[in-house]
Amino acid sequence: MEEISVYGVSWPPPVARGLVRDLRVRWALEEAGLPYASRYVDVEERNSEAYRRKHPFGLVPVVESSEGTWFESGAIVHAIAEQCEALMPSGQRVETLTWVFAALDTVEPPVWNLFVLDVLHRGEEWAILRRPGAVDEVKARLAALSAWLDDGRAHLLERFTVADILMTTVLRFIRHTDLVAGFPLLDAYVERCESRPAFQAALRKQMAGYAQNAPVAA
Amino acid sequence: MEEISVYGVSWPPPVARGLVRDLRVRWALEEAGLPYASRYVDVEERNSEAYRRKHPFGLVPVVESSEGTWFESGAIVHAIAEQCEALMPSGQRVETLTWVFAALDTVEPPVWNLFVLDVLHRGEEWAILRRPGAVDEVKARLAALSAWLDDGRAHLLERFTVADILMTTVLRFIRHTDLVAGFPLLDAYVERCESRPAFQAALRKQMAGYAQNAPVAA
Repeated sequence: MEEISVYGVSWPPPVARGLVRDLRVRWALEEAGLPYASRYVDVEERNSEAYRRKHPFGLVPVVESSEGTWFESGAIVHAIAEQCEALMPSGQRVETLTWVFAALDTVEPPVWNLFVLDVLHRGEEWAILRRPGAVDEVKARLAALSAWLDDGRAHLLERFTVADILMTTVLRFIRHTDLVAGFPLLDAYVERCESRPAFQAALRKQMAGYAQNAPVAA
Repeated sequence: MEEISVYGVSWPPPVARGLVRDLRVRWALEEAGLPYASRYVDVEERNSEAYRRKHPFGLVPVVESSEGTWFESGAIVHAIAEQCEALMPSGQRVETLTWVFAALDTVEPPVWNLFVLDVLHRGEEWAILRRPGAVDEVKARLAALSAWLDDGRAHLLERFTVADILMTTVLRFIRHTDLVAGFPLLDAYVERCESRPAFQAALRKQMAGYAQNAPVAA
């Protein structure tokens, strides 16, 4: 792959910074040692016909390279991982993809739901009424995940893989709560993954982009 | 693969029948022409240590075969598709997986959310308050999906693939509404996919299993 461009949101609200899903792609590229350029789109551009040709749902991330245009963070990081033994061990392709789906389809739904309640709909009556049940659903998933790690695992598989990129970025959606901290093994797992130089570089570059995109003060 | 066992829920409530996610796996196996046996687990078994060794989150589906034990419906159908040109064209592996993720991670979240509101939490105050916004979120995704099909597509890619299995089973979660019917191209798409003999066989076998599992009347 050459001349890889990663599309993110140009100016997300402070509560969403460090959570937008292009972070997953940046992290995977950093782990793989692949250079990339950052591109940013605002809401108007995301709804344009030109952008919808890149991403039919008008979302981020999108990745453009000489190999084509890709969308869906899960598919993009999987495609990167298929070319990178460090992200997907050749003998464990099925297991790795299983945990990619577990992160996105079993853990993310209740976790994202709580982010929606607490951050995107903060203070709304329905969100307040719904919250206790939503927290219980998150705890059930975190308990199961913690039990998995309790088997002496430092990562979801025997070593760090692309699945850990997805699980860590999913768990970050509830960084505004102390739910993960309630499971010490899980808390240590997130810290272990976030301490990787590739994560730190990805986050730093995502944040630096926002600083460059800051609107000029009136 | 030989002696494939597919695990589903032994006795789901009527509103959930035909929606439980082992249907996806059954459908993929039927398309691939692979025979399989049905196994059923109840809530108690799903929480047992023995079952958690098969599925760390205690959910269905699980698939057991001579190749191992798999969980996560997305990962399972992908593994089946990798061995079946009819489900994943060899020249379009990335595109197929992209639409698998689009179905599960972009379309399913708002669609499942509406199922949760209308079916699992029917009549609860928060669900009533939340519903209008949740419907709008579904419509936005359906409109984008309909626009994609409006480009003369009978399926998500150039022909039927595993991604259509996932998208169709996702859209079935709102079969209790007229939202899909509001997008004629999408309505026709779902009907086209559901009319496949493999889907019909998968649904018939899933339903037949429930009939056999019916509790004896007191």
